[in-house]
Formats: sequence, C-alpha cells, structure tokens
Amino acid sequence: MAVNQLMLEMLPEVELALRQVVDGTVNPRVPELRSMLTYHMGWEGEGAGPEAQGKRIRPLLVLLSAQAAGGDWREALPAAAAVELLHNFSLIHDDIQDRSELRRGRPTVWVKWGIAQAINAGDVMFTQAFHALQNLDRSLSADATLEALRVLQRVCLQLTEGQYLDLSYESRFELTQADYWPMITGKTSALLGGCCELGALCAGASHETRAAFHEFGLKLGLAFQVLDDWLGIWGDAALTGKSTESDLVSGKKSLPVLYALDRGGAFARRWLQGPIQAGDLPAVIEMLKADGAEEFTLAEAQRLTDQALSALARSAPLESTHNLRELTGLLLKRTH
Amino acid sequence: MAVNQLMLEMLPEVELALRQVVDGTVNPRVPELRSMLTYHMGWEGEGAGPEAQGKRIRPLLVLLSAQAAGGDWREALPAAAAVELLHNFSLIHDDIQDRSELRRGRPTVWVKWGIAQAINAGDVMFTQAFHALQNLDRSLSADATLEALRVLQRVCLQLTEGQYLDLSYESRFELTQADYWPMITGKTSALLGGCCELGALCAGASHETRAAFHEFGLKLGLAFQVLDDWLGIWGDAALTGKSTESDLVSGKKSLPVLYALDRGGAFARRWLQGPIQAGDLPAVIEMLKADGAEEFTLAEAQRLTDQALSALARSAPLESTHNLRELTGLLLKRTH
Repeated sequence: MAVNQLMLEMLPEVELALRQVVDGTVNPRVPELRSMLTYHMGWEGEGAGPEAQGKRIRPLLVLLSAQAAGGDWREALPAAAAVELLHNFSLIHDDIQDRSELRRGRPTVWVKWGIAQAINAGDVMFTQAFHALQNLDRSLSADATLEALRVLQRVCLQLTEGQYLDLSYESRFELTQADYWPMITGKTSALLGGCCELGALCAGASHETRAAFHEFGLKLGLAFQVLDDWLGIWGDAALTGKSTESDLVSGKKSLPVLYALDRGGAFARRWLQGPIQAGDLPAVIEMLKADGAEEFTLAEAQRLTDQALSALARSAPLESTHNLRELTGLLLKRTH
Repeated sequence: MAVNQLMLEMLPEVELALRQVVDGTVNPRVPELRSMLTYHMGWEGEGAGPEAQGKRIRPLLVLLSAQAAGGDWREALPAAAAVELLHNFSLIHDDIQDRSELRRGRPTVWVKWGIAQAINAGDVMFTQAFHALQNLDRSLSADATLEALRVLQRVCLQLTEGQYLDLSYESRFELTQADYWPMITGKTSALLGGCCELGALCAGASHETRAAFHEFGLKLGLAFQVLDDWLGIWGDAALTGKSTESDLVSGKKSLPVLYALDRGGAFARRWLQGPIQAGDLPAVIEMLKADGAEEFTLAEAQRLTDQALSALARSAPLESTHNLRELTGLLLKRTH
C-alpha cells in the first residue's frame, strides 16, 4: 500500500500511541503477558516487523477523518489507538474460534501460548481499547469522551453480533444473500464506520456530519469486504497462487457463492455435490461467471463505493477529503 | 445467605437493571446469542432460577456502599449491574479456560454452545458491563461517569492479570505464598474493591472516602478468598462431602497448601510424592494441621477481616455501615 506523505507522518505516531497503552497498562511483574500482546502487535518475537503489524488502516481512517473534519489529527490519536486495539483483540479471539494457526505469516497467539492464555490476552487488549479511548479526555470534554466511548461500545456489540453470525453460519447449509449483509456489517463495516465517526467526533463535528462520516466508513467497509470476496476467487493469489488461497476450495460462503446459490444454476448444482478441489477450479469459476456472479459482485462493490464517496461528499468540502479519498483508492484498488 | 430487609428490596432492582442491559443491547434478530446470555445469568433454560443466578454479592456491595456513603442506592444501580456483568463475563471465559463443565449446578455455556460461541458470548457480556456503567451519566456528571469507567477499567486489568497468573501457575510446580497474594488480589479482591469504590463514587464521596471503601472491599475480598481456601479443606463439604470437594484432591495450590510447602515439613514431603487420593485425606489433613497450616490460614482470615472492618470504620460513621457489616458477616461466616 503506497501511502502518501501525511499518512507516513501519522503511522509512527499511531505506533507510539499503541505502545504507550499496551506497555503502560500491563503490570511489569507479568512480562510474559506483555510479551503475548507485543508479539501479536508485531513488535516483538520471531518475525516481528512491519509485515507482522498489518497496515493500520483503521487508525489511519480515524486520523484522516479527524483531519478532513477540520480537526487536529494528533488529538485523535487515542481514538486511533483504540480502534486498532479493538481490531486486534477481535483477531486474537477470531484465531482461536477459527483455529487459525497463522496470522500475518506468524504462528497465532493461541498456537504459541495455548487457548486459555490467548482468550485472556484478548480480554486484556479489549480492556486496553477502552482505556486508550478514554485518554481522549485530555483534549476533549468529558461529554464528548463519553460519546466516543458510546460509539466504541456500539461497535463492540455489532462486532460480536457479526462474529456470532459468522460462527453460526459454519454449521448452516442453507444461506442466502440476506444472511450475508448483517454478518459482514458486524464483522467488518461497523468498525470502519466507527473509525470515521470517531475521527469526526474528535474534530468537534456536528451530529449530522458525524453521521455522514459514519455512513462513509460503513459503506467503505462493505465495498472493501465485497471486493475481498471477489479477490478470494478472481484475485491474482486465488487464480495463480496455491489453491488454498481460493475461497472456493476453503468453502467460504462469500457473496459470489451466495449469489450463485440463490440463482440455482449450474454452480449451485455443483456446490451441492460436495467440496471443490483445486483441479475443479477452472470449470467451477466458469460456472460462477456464467451465472453472472462475477458481474454482480463487481457491480455491488461499485455501488457501495459510490455510496461511500457520496456520503464523504456530504461530510466535508472536497478539498478537505483529499487524503481520505486517497486511502479509499488504496483500499479498493488492491489486486492481491 | 440470610439477607436483611434492605437487601431483599435491592435484589429485584438489581435483576431488573441486569435484564434491561442484557435484553436491551442484543439485537432481537439474533435470539440464540441472547439465549446464551440469559441462560448463563440463570434466567432462562433448563435449571433457571435463584440457585442458578448466584448470590449477586457484588451488586449488593455496590448498593450498600452507596447507601453507607450517604447516597441514594437506586442511583448506583447501573454500577451494580456493571460489576455483576463483569463478574459473569469472567466466569464464562474462566469456565472455558478451566474446562469446567458445571457452573452453579448447570452445564456451562461452552458445554452447551461450543468454545467458539462461548468466547464470543463472554465478549458480549464484557461490552455490556461497560455499557451498563455508562448509564450512570443519567444521574452523575460526565466527569464522575468517566471516573467510574476508569475504576472498572483498572479492575479489568487486575482481573486479567490475576487470570494470567492463575493459568500460568497450573504448569509451575515451585510456588510460594509470595505467588498467592497477587493472584487472588487480581482474581477476587480487585473487583470487590472496585464494587465498594464505585458505590462510594456514586454517592459523591471524596477521594479519601472512596479510597477507604476501596480498601474495605479489597481486604474483604482477600479475607473471603482465604476463608474459601480454608473451607476447601476443613469446610463441611470438603470433610464430609464427596472427596472431589476437597482442594487437596483437586491439587489446588491454596493458601494452607502453600504455607505448608514453604514450611517444608511432613506435608511438603507428602505433596512431592504425587496426587492425594480420597483415602489419604485424614492423614494428609492431620499433617497440614501439625505443620500449623490451619492455624495460620484462620489467623490470616482474621487479620484481613480486621483490616477490612478498620477500613470501613474510616469510611463512614458506624451507624451508616450497619448493612455493609451485616453483609460482611454473611460472607465471612459461611461453613459450606
């Protein structure tokens, strides 16, 4: 991701804010607990470094939204740290729930320290997210800080609802497109909506402006997820990489799949016959395409992107949202 | 537990406040997620009822502290709900971590819904605890509400630190009394200290008074845990019930055990030889007693109780703390 000058300036500040919370809230007499957190954040342990840290997209969304809404982005750093910690708490628990053994190319926390300690490490990071956010009261009023906490709480409730749906879908065979949207709204978009709303809130924006920023983040999140689903089948990695990179082989009920299942055509009949193997991919991808699933998915991504940009246009003057639009472009123009 | 008239008046109000948060924050379109929470709280599902709900000691501590500090206990109900939800979140995760299959006589959440969904249900209840507490701003100032949130965050950090220690002790053979206190402080006492401090805070008490209430709760929690350790070996259930009720058979590193191990006498030599069976109990209990472990444990419980009552005496006039002292008596005079 080729970030611009302002983002390059923001990223080390985000990292500093994150480290202050993670280091500052764990008792030094329990260094191993601290190690689990700093390992997961990509700062320490084998394989530590930028690759292991993720792209910090959510903090950037907070800071760029604060800047677009006319605020001083540095005052929004506690919120930037909070959303990244919340995201990472959910990843720690997610990896246990999905039994994922790798995260950003490294063994997951539960693989290294066991399930019991990993659940607890996630709980610590959950607390740290709220702790970070509350530091907003250094620059915001107590009322605005409480409002920010309420935004994060709402996100948490949506995130856990999305997680519930995702887990429950694993054992449900009959799923339709109608099941898809609430799940990805909770799992992906709610937090992105919260990021943009928090940024605007830190800048002292009105309720109406905050709602427009929220709508922007929400739709950006949906567009991002739909595009991710497209990449999972038609992206470079899925097409040319190892077959395990294809969502079709892993059996993920992504949007193209659900669309084609709703249509009940050739793909649906093939899906019912059992798991798709690497060798079947070319034929199955052709069926999906013939059923209109690729066209539909790309059209949905475009529709949601348009809605996101239209919300952004309502949220602030065009010249203020330059950086946010640049980040949007980076997020939605990935090929791998 | 024979509660008095005021406590009898408080308990249904606590239950109502709890239900409002649990019901009001879970989306009605995910009824199964709501069921996991209402089941765990003892309100619904097989075996629901007062026995399945626990004694709600923590909410009572909040409300009685608010009343003792001269406040209107009804205004502290959001804090009472918050501490009970935090306690129950920790129980849901605890049961997964310890692989406990029963809680208050019923199958645990993870046994009924699986580990992945149980982790998530705990995460929901964690969020609900903060959500509940934030409702304090209906009667308190925004500043006081933020202060209350900070108290709960501090408790969460201590709770998770205690949990980390508890889990890490399972695989450590060499433990001493010095390892015991930080663990039970985190796992039991920090929350009880937080309860009493929150009650005083809701009543608008000064920092000094809040600190005294905090100290009272903390020492009460330590005394309670030490007594619980005594009961685990010399209590009616441990002595006359099934052998599985004895902490000696389960191998728990409780205070009497750690004391005797530190002493290095007959008990320590027996402990090193391997697990204690039901048939060994009379002889092993005699060794513990001969090493002075029972006397020491009861003396520690008394010392901590005295410290708790002395902190309480500093916190409010004697006539105001009547109910709190009555609850203290109920908690520390259990025989099973």
